[in-house]
Amino acid sequence: MTARASAPGKAILFGEHSVVYGKPAIAVAVDKRANVTIREGNDDSIHVKIPELDVYGVIDIETGLISLENDILGQENPDTFDAGILKFIKSALFRTELGSSPDHGMDITVDLEIPIGAGLGSSAAITVATLAAAARYYHHDLSLETLALTAHQVELEVQGAASPLDTTVSTHGGFLYFTHESGGVKIKPALEMPLVVGYTSQPGNTGLLVQQVRKLCNDHPTIIKPIIGLMGNVTNHARESITHGEEERVGELMNINQGLLDALGVNTDELSRLIYHARSAGALGSKLTGAGGGGSMIAYCPGKTREVLEELQSIDNAFLVGMSRKGVTW
Amino acid sequence: MTARASAPGKAILFGEHSVVYGKPAIAVAVDKRANVTIREGNDDSIHVKIPELDVYGVIDIETGLISLENDILGQENPDTFDAGILKFIKSALFRTELGSSPDHGMDITVDLEIPIGAGLGSSAAITVATLAAAARYYHHDLSLETLALTAHQVELEVQGAASPLDTTVSTHGGFLYFTHESGGVKIKPALEMPLVVGYTSQPGNTGLLVQQVRKLCNDHPTIIKPIIGLMGNVTNHARESITHGEEERVGELMNINQGLLDALGVNTDELSRLIYHARSAGALGSKLTGAGGGGSMIAYCPGKTREVLEELQSIDNAFLVGMSRKGVTW
Repeated sequence: MTARASAPGKAILFGEHSVVYGKPAIAVAVDKRANVTIREGNDDSIHVKIPELDVYGVIDIETGLISLENDILGQENPDTFDAGILKFIKSALFRTELGSSPDHGMDITVDLEIPIGAGLGSSAAITVATLAAAARYYHHDLSLETLALTAHQVELEVQGAASPLDTTVSTHGGFLYFTHESGGVKIKPALEMPLVVGYTSQPGNTGLLVQQVRKLCNDHPTIIKPIIGLMGNVTNHARESITHGEEERVGELMNINQGLLDALGVNTDELSRLIYHARSAGALGSKLTGAGGGGSMIAYCPGKTREVLEELQSIDNAFLVGMSRKGVTW
Repeated sequence: MTARASAPGKAILFGEHSVVYGKPAIAVAVDKRANVTIREGNDDSIHVKIPELDVYGVIDIETGLISLENDILGQENPDTFDAGILKFIKSALFRTELGSSPDHGMDITVDLEIPIGAGLGSSAAITVATLAAAARYYHHDLSLETLALTAHQVELEVQGAASPLDTTVSTHGGFLYFTHESGGVKIKPALEMPLVVGYTSQPGNTGLLVQQVRKLCNDHPTIIKPIIGLMGNVTNHARESITHGEEERVGELMNINQGLLDALGVNTDELSRLIYHARSAGALGSKLTGAGGGGSMIAYCPGKTREVLEELQSIDNAFLVGMSRKGVTW
């Protein structure tokens, strides 16, 4: 028995951080995916291979203990490493929503096209794809709504706190306007959305950055709260501009949003360099994406993707992403 | 007969751009000055030397025509050059507020400690010092209020538009909270104000930048107007923190102000690099100063001036400035 599923990563276009304070966000599923294959195993353990991360782990079915078959960089603690991703896979496999749970050995392979720790939703994509592949493996029906909800539960269990934004986008695909009240609402862009992602070699620590912003907000409430409110306005204006096909305004709003994120203290020298070089190379707008403090930036550059990509690649890691209308496939 | 006067440059700590929209600003006179000496001349012209800029000009007393004795970089148009500063000197010498006007040759030497085009108020300092030296030369009494007002008139005449902020600070010295209604009000800082100024090799074009912000404000009024309003709040909070000696809050407010300036589109890659490197080297706060789009940044770095200065000097031009309690001296 072999079961496969695949789910896309995401890029936040508008609203990171302000979404934590109940403001809307706009995110897009990208054409970089996590592809999960589950096969029956030859022993009593769950073997997990993620070749792109050089992670080879074993999950003990009885105890749930995770160990590494390879000793990454001489470290043994899976918490501190790319190997931490194994926790999402383990949590997903044992969710009661799947009807069954592992009772014999499995071989799981994750083919990962999304860089991790780059704010591009790699853990959500792996979680969604693992849940979907496992449901198929167990011959269990799972609605998209239940899948998204369960994936969010997995993120909560592993991370302690998580926004449902990533798992929602990864499940449903496309362009989403997201609020905490209504969840994700698909929006119809009236423009192409060619994006270049640049990512720094420092992964951002989302939890820490959210705490930092909270502290700044507590220390300067009459300044930071209105900034967060304005970020909500920017997102709502951006939604209009995206659905009306106003390319330049979308770019301007990204740049304004970037300044407001800088005011929250989540920008870095490395991100700023990529952001400004993208604009010089012809991007209509560019901003950090995700929590900041490292991680990634996105540039919106209709007609200039090659120029922007080459410029960013001359500085750091960069790649082109397109929107993925497809969410999870199984 | 020899007459001397000297006036300080300034650094805006809070409120550039928002001051154009009627919000308050905080600026400080710095211990870099323009020193002007007027001596009786040997012929019928006014000879002006500014050795630091390699500018040697002649003003014809009859016609007011300005010409250059040296041919700077092979260009002859004083408009486009450091030599443009001669227009301020000429306008100052012929102001009716001085009671007399040049009726015989003069030799004027400007010893300039302030880099020009760096947002540090070099033209205002030269104007104020020239007016003061000329008043002394003509044996004419001039109150500080009249001096500041006259210097502003000179800036208006030469530039077409100008904020009275620079000439006010250059005349009165110290730490000023400035509003258009009340002019400058001295504030008493309860903390030391060690500043490092870093300046890029691109001079910012203030007029152009003010226009750009105006356009952005017209295009996105419901977002940009509130940002400008918030900048006013930041300045008012900063005034409190400065007078209460809250170093960390002053730094945080500078960083927030910087993000808001970035949202207005007046930040650059070069400025951002200096700003972030200053913070890494220990500055409590850092932001662009003046109109942006090039020009200068300031870093507030109690206990860390040496570290920040060295870091910025490894990237671009930088120097240490202290507050000058002294305004114009004559």
